[in-house]
Amino acid sequence: MTSTFRSRPAASPIRAIDVITKKRDGHELSAAEIESFIAAYTTGGIPDYQASAWLMAVVLRGMSRTETAALTNAMLHSGEVLDLSEFPAAKVDKHSTGGVGDKTSLVLAPLAAAGGLVVPMISGRGLGHTGGTLDKLESIPGFKVNLSVAEFRRVLSACGCAMIGQTAEIAPADRKLYALRDVTATVESPYLICASIMSKKLAEGIDALVLDVKTGSGAFMKKEEDAIFLAELMVETGERVGKKMVALITDMNQPLGTHIGNSLEVIEALDVLRGSGPEDLRQLCLELAGWMFYLGGIESTTELGKLKAERLIRSGAALETFRTMLKLQGGDEHVIDDASLLPRSKHAMQIPSPKTGFISEIDCQAIGTASVILGGGRAKKEDSVDPSVGIILHRKLGDAVSAGEPLCTIHYNSETQADEAAALLQKSFRIAEAAPAKKKSLVHRVIGGDITSR
Amino acid sequence: MTSTFRSRPAASPIRAIDVITKKRDGHELSAAEIESFIAAYTTGGIPDYQASAWLMAVVLRGMSRTETAALTNAMLHSGEVLDLSEFPAAKVDKHSTGGVGDKTSLVLAPLAAAGGLVVPMISGRGLGHTGGTLDKLESIPGFKVNLSVAEFRRVLSACGCAMIGQTAEIAPADRKLYALRDVTATVESPYLICASIMSKKLAEGIDALVLDVKTGSGAFMKKEEDAIFLAELMVETGERVGKKMVALITDMNQPLGTHIGNSLEVIEALDVLRGSGPEDLRQLCLELAGWMFYLGGIESTTELGKLKAERLIRSGAALETFRTMLKLQGGDEHVIDDASLLPRSKHAMQIPSPKTGFISEIDCQAIGTASVILGGGRAKKEDSVDPSVGIILHRKLGDAVSAGEPLCTIHYNSETQADEAAALLQKSFRIAEAAPAKKKSLVHRVIGGDITSR
Repeated sequence: MTSTFRSRPAASPIRAIDVITKKRDGHELSAAEIESFIAAYTTGGIPDYQASAWLMAVVLRGMSRTETAALTNAMLHSGEVLDLSEFPAAKVDKHSTGGVGDKTSLVLAPLAAAGGLVVPMISGRGLGHTGGTLDKLESIPGFKVNLSVAEFRRVLSACGCAMIGQTAEIAPADRKLYALRDVTATVESPYLICASIMSKKLAEGIDALVLDVKTGSGAFMKKEEDAIFLAELMVETGERVGKKMVALITDMNQPLGTHIGNSLEVIEALDVLRGSGPEDLRQLCLELAGWMFYLGGIESTTELGKLKAERLIRSGAALETFRTMLKLQGGDEHVIDDASLLPRSKHAMQIPSPKTGFISEIDCQAIGTASVILGGGRAKKEDSVDPSVGIILHRKLGDAVSAGEPLCTIHYNSETQADEAAALLQKSFRIAEAAPAKKKSLVHRVIGGDITSR
Repeated sequence: MTSTFRSRPAASPIRAIDVITKKRDGHELSAAEIESFIAAYTTGGIPDYQASAWLMAVVLRGMSRTETAALTNAMLHSGEVLDLSEFPAAKVDKHSTGGVGDKTSLVLAPLAAAGGLVVPMISGRGLGHTGGTLDKLESIPGFKVNLSVAEFRRVLSACGCAMIGQTAEIAPADRKLYALRDVTATVESPYLICASIMSKKLAEGIDALVLDVKTGSGAFMKKEEDAIFLAELMVETGERVGKKMVALITDMNQPLGTHIGNSLEVIEALDVLRGSGPEDLRQLCLELAGWMFYLGGIESTTELGKLKAERLIRSGAALETFRTMLKLQGGDEHVIDDASLLPRSKHAMQIPSPKTGFISEIDCQAIGTASVILGGGRAKKEDSVDPSVGIILHRKLGDAVSAGEPLCTIHYNSETQADEAAALLQKSFRIAEAAPAKKKSLVHRVIGGDITSR
């Protein structure tokens, strides 16, 4: 026996099983452990079955703010991070957690760009009962959302905004993890949602981000406290890496505006860009634009930012920026002046109110689901969407209605789908005898946005 | 529009994602959900990544007694369940949760069979720092543990006991799930451990089961409360399907007996069958045998069962039953009379005590690990074991020792392995100046075993 002591390797590699065990037991993972796990998973070094066990442990054990930031960072750096420093203007984006009838992105990108900001917007497709910006844009004949990074820069440079889908180069870890979360019941975690959203948004090379976190019957976060928790998490995660951040907790107890469905929502967004459109949608666009101008340093208060947004709509500058972007991305610009060039459903039918009274409640998720049933969204990821179908609301919360008057109109191509959607829609409106109390405000709360103290 | 109401399918199939979600959210799964999930996983209808997410949810959310029973049942019926009703005698087995130096199975199978019981023992291999019955048996030249079910019945019929490994037909769900748990940090769950053990034991077609649940520094359950929890779970799960059950919570704060290692443990088991052997091992064998005779209806009290076991050893009947089984399973019966026919290590070295005093603490897991390092166990599942190596203890808890006297002897074939094991063993004994207080009893507690009231 020569020696009873033997040296051990100085630094042992991080093992997947140890990272899973540590999170399972509720301990805080180090940034190195998280980075190593995510990098190995993205490149195939860790199999799906280990990643899904870890994801479930994260869902049930949670993460600290430091862990959430490390996870965001690891996912961000799993792919390309755009460098937009060639653009002297502030790069500001807006992101919504998803709702029904939420077409604000279509208004905000050209509106903010018309006011001097650069808006490098990378969006997603419809998810569950909510619509997706890419699906809406693709209802415009010719519009391409799959640009190369070089094309993306060219459009940005020409008109200050561009709207594309996630590229293969951006946050590949998120794409792989999201596909796994989707089939392992690990989507619903504020930490994982935060890292997924923030890694993609930070990859855009932005200086500031306005978050629209929805809460209510049509939102993913039904409870306001959950929406606030997620908003705080995202604001802090962005601020940790020096981004200017704000989150508006906004109401999703009824659809935003009156149009739900892809081409229908393009029509309504164009209305807002023209200075008309429903008041709730218009107000939310102005609020969000006000924050974008404020965080981007264009105006010294959000109120001034809002006034600027109103002027840009009134002057037609916002609509013209949309037209330029649309042309640069291959779309048919004539749709702007002639909505009949957009895909239109073959049939329409009205859903009449069964009684006289006031709309006291709307099952907003059911309305989103009805639109999916019509073909406007996807039941499975592989499904294609029908751009022409959807729902137009004639009554919203607090409105009076007489028996027989239409609550909404279904735009459809298939009788079977229409029947199913109609049955759902008939159950989605609650009608009370008395007029309801004061309406809930559209913006429930503002989180973050304090850029003066920094 | 013909109708706004459409019928839905009467019973929708159970979806994996819904079962995962339900467990994630802490709800109780129905037996149908558990059975459907396990059946689909076993036959490849559910991928590993969904099963591992579900397993982690089970680890962190737990299971009710009803769920645990349903899981056990689903795993049991994933494969063949032996029907031993052709044997008129009571079928009784013993199972240990794993320890260091635990060779009681080698004594109990022939001892209980000699007393008139049928013992259809299906055992496992070494796991982590603990030894496995199959590895020990295979150190006997020629001994075959992979019998067909027909051969198994033939041996049982000839001598009342047979000792084999898990066949492909028995609980395939457990084999597949265990392999997944092993790499996803989902082994440590009393519910999953219970279902894994009980599904395999119930597949043996037994009437009664004596469980030896270890607790202490060398056990998987270091904390006694965890051992008790698991024991209660297993006893209740067995009783729910009409089995007579008892669990003894026994001490594993030091190895059982003095011999650790495969052929070394066969030697010590033969000593006990001959009426000698260390007192702790001998006493535990008698206790467990007493319970087997009591639960099997051979004796009216466990005390009488214990006396019967003593008589069967004294008369040589137990040893002769072992000899018969050994021959029937292809082993060289001469090892019984000449231990030198068993594999022997090339070298041996003693670990001297660094000081004079009393053994106050033994790191029992470290001693098991030292045996694995010598080659007596597996670091990875694919490793083969060296049957000849191991450790013989010369001092146990409470024993006096003088400086320089041997604490234990290492039996080894490789200098490098011996060096590493020696370094570990030197740190595994704590020596105090004063004699320790009264020793802990070997059997801490008895759970279940109340068969009179049923």
